[in-house]
Amino acid sequence: MGKKRVAVILAGCGVYDGSELHECSATMVHLSRAGAEIQLYAPNVNQMHVVNHLTGQPTEEVRNVLVESSRIARGNIKDLPELNINDTDALIIPGGFGVAKNLSSWAVKGKDFSVEPSVETAVKKFHATKKPIGLCCISPVLAAKLIPGCELTVGHDTECEKWPYAKTAQTMVELGCKHVNKHVTEIHIDKQNKLVTTSAFMCNAAIHEIFDGIGEMVKEVLKLA
Amino acid sequence: MGKKRVAVILAGCGVYDGSELHECSATMVHLSRAGAEIQLYAPNVNQMHVVNHLTGQPTEEVRNVLVESSRIARGNIKDLPELNINDTDALIIPGGFGVAKNLSSWAVKGKDFSVEPSVETAVKKFHATKKPIGLCCISPVLAAKLIPGCELTVGHDTECEKWPYAKTAQTMVELGCKHVNKHVTEIHIDKQNKLVTTSAFMCNAAIHEIFDGIGEMVKEVLKLA
Repeated sequence: MGKKRVAVILAGCGVYDGSELHECSATMVHLSRAGAEIQLYAPNVNQMHVVNHLTGQPTEEVRNVLVESSRIARGNIKDLPELNINDTDALIIPGGFGVAKNLSSWAVKGKDFSVEPSVETAVKKFHATKKPIGLCCISPVLAAKLIPGCELTVGHDTECEKWPYAKTAQTMVELGCKHVNKHVTEIHIDKQNKLVTTSAFMCNAAIHEIFDGIGEMVKEVLKLA
Repeated sequence: MGKKRVAVILAGCGVYDGSELHECSATMVHLSRAGAEIQLYAPNVNQMHVVNHLTGQPTEEVRNVLVESSRIARGNIKDLPELNINDTDALIIPGGFGVAKNLSSWAVKGKDFSVEPSVETAVKKFHATKKPIGLCCISPVLAAKLIPGCELTVGHDTECEKWPYAKTAQTMVELGCKHVNKHVTEIHIDKQNKLVTTSAFMCNAAIHEIFDGIGEMVKEVLKLA
């Protein structure tokens, strides 16, 4: 059996306006250790906005999702429409606000959001061809929109210091999904939809626990591929 | 014994004009797993330039090292002069071209380079107080300048596909250091100077091997602290 080929979709570079880069790095380390081929993609569109991560405030700058994602990819990345479903075995989308701002309009529109067309096309192709999809942090909202009735986790549905984004879980239920509470080092597997989810930085956990949770997600995605 | 407190100096966000973000993330994951307290710092100066990581070409943009580093830090980072040597037990500086462009003038001046003043102050304070220093990838050049005659590794001194930057090792010798060839998953320990070095992305290795090499560096730095 050859190498498993895994497409990873990035959303920029930095938690507040792009991909959460530690989640991306963890994904790549675990895929690499498992001997998988990593294919990085991002849509060639402008970011919704640029956030100064020191102040938390938006700036006047304009940055492009593909160009900023290439910082995580060390230059080795392609425009998302170039993804060919026949050349890849699984899909992973790490989290970060970029998923809610650049890959979809979740951050602005809440549950009436839409998904960026090339991202929607990609997710639907993997699902239609029964290839596994791994999502973490906020990116499970994409499945909530594109895979109706799926099962997923974004962590816990009880607001507390550890789970500042617990309301997201309730919204998943309003969108018709089954939400399953999971610890940051755990995953939820929706076997029917070949969908693997983990909460990552939805939880205020230590970074090595997020690394481990993503490791579980990667392991299961490769098993299903 | 309390938590070991480790200062990590960042140089921007992205291999070609800032810190190599996977090296930073690996450092943070390993420190977190070991129960260390992570203190992130960067100098509040403009980057030498901004590189479009997709094309490899410089752009007209102006970006600040502290602001861009805060993407890796998720906002939790301080201006480097705020570092108080009494509140920290060890120092780690991950690699990336930002070390050679923003933390020093190595990329422009080669072996006649100088080190950014707040970085020079920090490295010298850790060395003078016999607190360990961990450096990886290109950042050992800082020690070559600031800790005369030290022993270090930047990987291998033989040019090949795996070691595209092998000439750096020869320059370390010209600067009066002892260079020790090491594999990407290995470290070199200069016991007298409490200096721990590993090659990281100086080698075209798989990302999980770089993660593991940095893990060895972190382990040894904490042991010496």
